[in-house]
Amino acid sequence: MEKIERWGVFEAAVPGRTEGNPFTDYEMQGTFTGPQETRTVEGFYDGDGTWRVRFMPSFEGEYTYQISGSFSDRETEGRFLVTAPEPNNHGPVRVHNRYHLAWEDGTPHYSLGTTCYTFDLQREEIVEETFRELEKGYFNKMRFCLFPKHYDFCLYDPIAFPYEGTPMDASVLTRENFDQYNGNPPGNHWDFTRFNPAFFQIHDRTIRRLMDMGIEADLILFHAYDRWGFSQMSMEDNRRYLRYVAARYSAFRNVWWALANEYELLHHSKADWDILGKELRSHDPYGHLLSIHNCEVFYDYSKDWITHCSCQRCDHYRTTESTDELRMQYGKPVVWDEFGYEGDFPHCWGNFTPEEIVRRSWEALLRGGYCGHGETFLSDDNIIWWAHGGRLKGQSAERFRFMKDFLTEVPGCGLKLARLRDDKHFQWDDKVAVPEDPRYEGTWYFFYYSLWQPAFRQIWVNDTTWFDVDVIDTWQMTVTPIGRRRGRFNVPLGTKQYMGIRLRKSEVQDDL
Amino acid sequence: MEKIERWGVFEAAVPGRTEGNPFTDYEMQGTFTGPQETRTVEGFYDGDGTWRVRFMPSFEGEYTYQISGSFSDRETEGRFLVTAPEPNNHGPVRVHNRYHLAWEDGTPHYSLGTTCYTFDLQREEIVEETFRELEKGYFNKMRFCLFPKHYDFCLYDPIAFPYEGTPMDASVLTRENFDQYNGNPPGNHWDFTRFNPAFFQIHDRTIRRLMDMGIEADLILFHAYDRWGFSQMSMEDNRRYLRYVAARYSAFRNVWWALANEYELLHHSKADWDILGKELRSHDPYGHLLSIHNCEVFYDYSKDWITHCSCQRCDHYRTTESTDELRMQYGKPVVWDEFGYEGDFPHCWGNFTPEEIVRRSWEALLRGGYCGHGETFLSDDNIIWWAHGGRLKGQSAERFRFMKDFLTEVPGCGLKLARLRDDKHFQWDDKVAVPEDPRYEGTWYFFYYSLWQPAFRQIWVNDTTWFDVDVIDTWQMTVTPIGRRRGRFNVPLGTKQYMGIRLRKSEVQDDL
Repeated sequence: MEKIERWGVFEAAVPGRTEGNPFTDYEMQGTFTGPQETRTVEGFYDGDGTWRVRFMPSFEGEYTYQISGSFSDRETEGRFLVTAPEPNNHGPVRVHNRYHLAWEDGTPHYSLGTTCYTFDLQREEIVEETFRELEKGYFNKMRFCLFPKHYDFCLYDPIAFPYEGTPMDASVLTRENFDQYNGNPPGNHWDFTRFNPAFFQIHDRTIRRLMDMGIEADLILFHAYDRWGFSQMSMEDNRRYLRYVAARYSAFRNVWWALANEYELLHHSKADWDILGKELRSHDPYGHLLSIHNCEVFYDYSKDWITHCSCQRCDHYRTTESTDELRMQYGKPVVWDEFGYEGDFPHCWGNFTPEEIVRRSWEALLRGGYCGHGETFLSDDNIIWWAHGGRLKGQSAERFRFMKDFLTEVPGCGLKLARLRDDKHFQWDDKVAVPEDPRYEGTWYFFYYSLWQPAFRQIWVNDTTWFDVDVIDTWQMTVTPIGRRRGRFNVPLGTKQYMGIRLRKSEVQDDL
Repeated sequence: MEKIERWGVFEAAVPGRTEGNPFTDYEMQGTFTGPQETRTVEGFYDGDGTWRVRFMPSFEGEYTYQISGSFSDRETEGRFLVTAPEPNNHGPVRVHNRYHLAWEDGTPHYSLGTTCYTFDLQREEIVEETFRELEKGYFNKMRFCLFPKHYDFCLYDPIAFPYEGTPMDASVLTRENFDQYNGNPPGNHWDFTRFNPAFFQIHDRTIRRLMDMGIEADLILFHAYDRWGFSQMSMEDNRRYLRYVAARYSAFRNVWWALANEYELLHHSKADWDILGKELRSHDPYGHLLSIHNCEVFYDYSKDWITHCSCQRCDHYRTTESTDELRMQYGKPVVWDEFGYEGDFPHCWGNFTPEEIVRRSWEALLRGGYCGHGETFLSDDNIIWWAHGGRLKGQSAERFRFMKDFLTEVPGCGLKLARLRDDKHFQWDDKVAVPEDPRYEGTWYFFYYSLWQPAFRQIWVNDTTWFDVDVIDTWQMTVTPIGRRRGRFNVPLGTKQYMGIRLRKSEVQDDL
């Protein structure tokens, strides 16, 4: 009997009808029954007469299934055995403890992603270069678009298109005139009722490969960087696309849905987005994480179909320092998917120093939020991480791995900003992170000094507990133990920026 | 006949009564009549049987005066000639064009001050060291307290006290216990009805010396860093003090009044401050600049008696970037007297890098505001610029002189932030300063890139005007002309922070 690990992808490929338009004329469902669940999921047409159903089992044990629908005259049945997950497989990521994230097996997930908008539609050598960078373990999420991208430095055609038809002639484009071709210029000829399976198979392979690496795939479903009209389809076309995407990708445990990137730049109203969000939610049987990302104004993250806040900075100066206010406002996890990129682009969002990227990231973590990386260095070959992937050139990427290692050592799952009144000894200008989990109250503190450069700080959290004290240099990525301390004590910080002090309750509480 | 320059200090010293309490029991007035003004001003008792009247003539020509009052049985009369001001004398600073400042002769004043809270109550060698630093011309305003200061690193007694009496024993103080002596601890014995003229004579000399150097004296009248009870006097004592100070110092053209530093830290209500502000206003015959400085919450600068906003940052991350909003809210000049100090203090307000101090300063200037410097480097001798003056140790001070030189070249008086819609060619992420004076519209632009590090920027203000273009490195203090440009053009900026681009309409508008 076929074996599938728990939260793996079971896939049944069945021949079926091809007459008329198989993408619109027929239905396909699979019903899966295991020891603790019965679930009906939608199938999809994958071209060449092949129909597929994909299913993610959430429990171990023997499953049976029946596949039916108008796509075929006959029912298909079968069974498979769901085994324990491999060590690298923790299931899909869920909201945990209101403000945080954990995989379904309970392992905390500290979201530290990166963005390569259209990396898997590049030529093979660039894709392989990107994956070699991802192997370094700097990031645990990749944020990318399903549709191809038309924007600065990203003018040539992708290796495939999502629909049957022909694109406008790309040879007329230059860096200077690309603005004129935004939206839906003449020359595109598409049938939005007929998907191109070869295109979606590219993303299949990407999502699976990321999954095998333990990297979440944050799929951007709509965006405005477009010259083919994919951003200007009708609501009916949009809904058809969402249903196809949900049927095709929901069974991958590592999928997150990003309904839109910079939603305000598309022509849809907020009500349209609400309809599309609910449509996607109703066709995803597994309840994957789902959000919508802003340009200048946050979407109303309190909507039921939104699981977390996917934020771009609204203010250019104060960004991730607003994490705690957003948590309070929406009562959901805050993920800064875009607060600026390391690089030297002319655009203000793409020319941060690595130090500032790292600083803004720690400001998010400190307040119990999460954050993402990006790189925008000008390049003679126009291969830029933020759009194409390729080779990392900056200094912030490896510092995201250090953040993940740091968070992994926090007791429980995730941080929150301590209110100053929580401890009478805190100073008025302290920014202190403590574990979100109340079971660890009083046992763990992280003081962060951001852009400031104190020669030393006085620490005083209480008089009776011994703490092991570490000086953490978030830029140099060093953790320097300075010994056991109690009561009020000074910690030298070397007149350097980006420093922190970590206190962990000592194993030994006896006086020495 | 005695000669006084216009806006100089005429002083008449007259013997008078000493019986009882001359500070409270008698009155003294001088009435001055010149070709264009008649003004009655209050005199004051200066100890040792000497009474003084000081007067600042605002016009040239022959003045006569009569001095009278209960301080003496006889009237004193005299005359003097007011001559043209010396080149370094432009009169008192006034609000100019709503948001800016100019001396009374019309010369623009770009306020770039510094703070040495209690520098003139130090021993002579430190005072002289401070004046040697001020001679370098980095600053055109000195912000300091009249009352002595009790705070971290500032524990020993001042060289004199403002009242007759005796202070508490300073030998009991250590850096650790200074908090316990805040306010009005036992051991102080003062008669708040009897000023100590020797103390006020120290400030006389300081203010005059600053005046001769062309430096404004921003006198902080009340503050909370106190162990002598001067911050806890009754409203009657406060008013008596303000009247004495006004009679004594108003005739110095370079005086600005800072009613309080961090007003919230004193026990007075907002209504009390309103009373004190009006009291001072009514006893200052010349209408000197007057404001009140906050700790965490701005005072209501819209009050009639307040001439400008004297601000400390309210948010720790976004500070001077709010200058344009403050201008809009209060309709008055915005002077950031405290947004942070360069140094390595443990306190978050006192450990900024010089780069960040300079960046925040330019953010203020760009938006048509002004800003002040300060330094807080730990020091073995506890001589720290911010409190005592002494020697400058940082890198930001000289960059204030560069700012002043830059502003001096702006046509008209001062800047404002251009609204992006003012020019259709501005990019959405441009921060552009233009002259406040509408006569120079379209002739001058300054683009500032702050903490960002673009490799280049595209500039496009209009298609028909030739501009002389300069790249300005605000950190390196360089102005690099790159030539004449028109229409749309790229300006290389070297992937560096703190860069700007200045455009000045070319003298020659012909095509070359």
